[in-house]
Amino acid sequence: MTDYAPAMLTDQYELTMINAALKDGTAGRRCVFEVFARRLPIGRRYGVVAGTGRLIELIRGFRFSGRDIDFLRAAEVVDRTTADWLADYRFTGDVDGYAEGELFFPGSPLLTVSGSFAECVLLETLVLSVLNHDSAVAAGAARMVTAARGRPIIEMGSRRTHERSAVAAARAAYLAGFASTSNLAAGAAYGIPTTGTSAHAFTLLHDDEPAAFASQVDALGKNTTLLVDTYDIGQGIRNAIAVAGPDLRAIRIDSGDLSVLAQHSRELLDSLGATETKIIVSGDMDEHSIAALAAEPVDLYGAGTAVVTGSGAPTAGLVYKLVEVDGRPVVKRSEHKATVGGRKTAVRRHKPTGTAIEEIIVSQGVPDHQANDRLLQRSFVAGGETVEQPTLADSREHLRQCLISIPWEGLKLSAGDPAIPVTFITNI
Amino acid sequence: MTDYAPAMLTDQYELTMINAALKDGTAGRRCVFEVFARRLPIGRRYGVVAGTGRLIELIRGFRFSGRDIDFLRAAEVVDRTTADWLADYRFTGDVDGYAEGELFFPGSPLLTVSGSFAECVLLETLVLSVLNHDSAVAAGAARMVTAARGRPIIEMGSRRTHERSAVAAARAAYLAGFASTSNLAAGAAYGIPTTGTSAHAFTLLHDDEPAAFASQVDALGKNTTLLVDTYDIGQGIRNAIAVAGPDLRAIRIDSGDLSVLAQHSRELLDSLGATETKIIVSGDMDEHSIAALAAEPVDLYGAGTAVVTGSGAPTAGLVYKLVEVDGRPVVKRSEHKATVGGRKTAVRRHKPTGTAIEEIIVSQGVPDHQANDRLLQRSFVAGGETVEQPTLADSREHLRQCLISIPWEGLKLSAGDPAIPVTFITNI
Repeated sequence: MTDYAPAMLTDQYELTMINAALKDGTAGRRCVFEVFARRLPIGRRYGVVAGTGRLIELIRGFRFSGRDIDFLRAAEVVDRTTADWLADYRFTGDVDGYAEGELFFPGSPLLTVSGSFAECVLLETLVLSVLNHDSAVAAGAARMVTAARGRPIIEMGSRRTHERSAVAAARAAYLAGFASTSNLAAGAAYGIPTTGTSAHAFTLLHDDEPAAFASQVDALGKNTTLLVDTYDIGQGIRNAIAVAGPDLRAIRIDSGDLSVLAQHSRELLDSLGATETKIIVSGDMDEHSIAALAAEPVDLYGAGTAVVTGSGAPTAGLVYKLVEVDGRPVVKRSEHKATVGGRKTAVRRHKPTGTAIEEIIVSQGVPDHQANDRLLQRSFVAGGETVEQPTLADSREHLRQCLISIPWEGLKLSAGDPAIPVTFITNI
Repeated sequence: MTDYAPAMLTDQYELTMINAALKDGTAGRRCVFEVFARRLPIGRRYGVVAGTGRLIELIRGFRFSGRDIDFLRAAEVVDRTTADWLADYRFTGDVDGYAEGELFFPGSPLLTVSGSFAECVLLETLVLSVLNHDSAVAAGAARMVTAARGRPIIEMGSRRTHERSAVAAARAAYLAGFASTSNLAAGAAYGIPTTGTSAHAFTLLHDDEPAAFASQVDALGKNTTLLVDTYDIGQGIRNAIAVAGPDLRAIRIDSGDLSVLAQHSRELLDSLGATETKIIVSGDMDEHSIAALAAEPVDLYGAGTAVVTGSGAPTAGLVYKLVEVDGRPVVKRSEHKATVGGRKTAVRRHKPTGTAIEEIIVSQGVPDHQANDRLLQRSFVAGGETVEQPTLADSREHLRQCLISIPWEGLKLSAGDPAIPVTFITNI
């Protein structure tokens, strides 16, 4: 695996801009960059901030190696002065933003990066890659968790996405409330519970299904999951209970009409005395197919493709825009109607019951806020030093609380408007 | 950046299956696993094999570290015997498959991995992650290249996907015929030409647009691209030519009605004597928006989100199935109608003119083939040793030739059937 310093995961234009700005003297101007989404994916009612925990760590390690610098010089991307500046690069600015696991809506200033132009513009690609990917996965996954109504979901989509994205996707899905992942690297990196027992290949490898089941139970014990749909599912369940006994932990069904199969399987398991044996279903699960199984006797879901691809919205549409230079608000002309310049602060207002009402965003000032309002920005990095690195456990709990707080319409799977309105107040 | 051995980019069930198979004595059975797609994304007329070059290198380096093994033991994923086996793991089998850059259709056996059950099943997740991601990107990108009718396309989607996927996506897009990428790591890793000059932030940083343009031209010369749509595009073009002179290399427009803007910009540039200055357009480009600009005076396209997300199909739907055990064809029951067991060999038949007619796939044998037929499998790895590692340049040329060979209907952007039919012949 060809491995590069995180700093090379960058678009060339960041370096050419720094090159020109170092030369003309503007590189040190104090700038504020803001991450926001102009809109949510069509019909989505909320976005989920995810990736912040990974991002803060990546910013801390954002360095160019000597080999990287040599490449940039040889390719004539930068001049000698810029090469020296890059070799010494350390981010010394501030990163503020919404908590990881926070909800966001169109225009929410969910991350703010401030410092010199050069040190901030250099982070653009990395900031967006991490947040766009992880937030897209978390938002789709959160809808699946809602649809599952408390039943656990296993993330098993590694094979449907880039091998490294898979690890981040497992993290984002767990953040969104998934119970576990099949991905071992995600277990090792983030402490996410891992799970997995066997594939159809294991049954096909053996002389017959009872032999495969006996081998698995012998190696892993009865607290395992037997995959019963390689041949005939009814016979598969009979074989499973004959081999493992009625205290087998679970069976898994990966194909067919899962609604009918879950019912028949439950009846058959019960008739065999395996009343505690759980039923896991997998195979093209998304929030809609999960919702459609709500009334069936399913105990766990396994979700793959739809999770790692954001369930139809594989990127969160976040942008990284310069909003302030030396205290002066700036904005691209074509966005005058849609966006507002200047550093922004946001509060979310709530009813006394705790239900969110609206998000208020103020440019160059702090919104008036009362007892039931919540200031959304917090400090992650100040003066280049990490103030807070979100933990996965905290971010997961934060999202859980946020989803309780939004109006119930916000949790509907159908297409609709953002769960709460966003109001901009500009003091400019 | 938390970095793990590639071997940890794996689903847990592969290790639990190996654990059980080592215990029951089936781990050494000679197996053939096959990678294929049951179907193409809806309406797509071909798939593109991409990622093989990355995959062969990753398989060569597929090892567990001592730390990985400790984690797997502590998590009780494997027993001591399996841990020892994993610690010694080296792939000693064979990998055969379609050339990187080859087209594939439903059922095409595009990669075959053979060896012992244990050594082959362990590669499942990695094989699928690499091929599903890279093939999805390459297939969408190839459609954009067709739509661009010879005009170059720059890949600039890094920010819309996971930071590491971005590098692989740049590779897949270049394989598909893109001219260059904005991603520096992709330039360093794969020798892909990199490009990029400035963003709106650079103009906003400066006191006015002429100051920004003057700075850029001073640093990068006239052989650069000035971004003219931060404020008024007409004025932006006048400023650009006033600053750089009529031999400015290019302007870029990133927003608005690109069709109208390209026409007006061309007229204005010509009227200013900048008849050779190129027009680059970017902003939500996909194969359809590129096709819609075919008649406009556009010289280059910049494509981002749509490329890195497979233009609506972010994963290629490839599966990794056990098809043969100790010479005996095997197949999961529910797929008896759709798929065929046994090791397969494929030929593509062509007319004497070179146009592809059909793909013939034979189980447990080699298709009869004549002068105009092409055997599709080649050897990448034999007995664990690399026979051929595809190079990006060769794969790119191979795809270019393949796209020339398919019937012209196969290149249409509209939804349709696969470009050529696939015929299965089973000798079982």
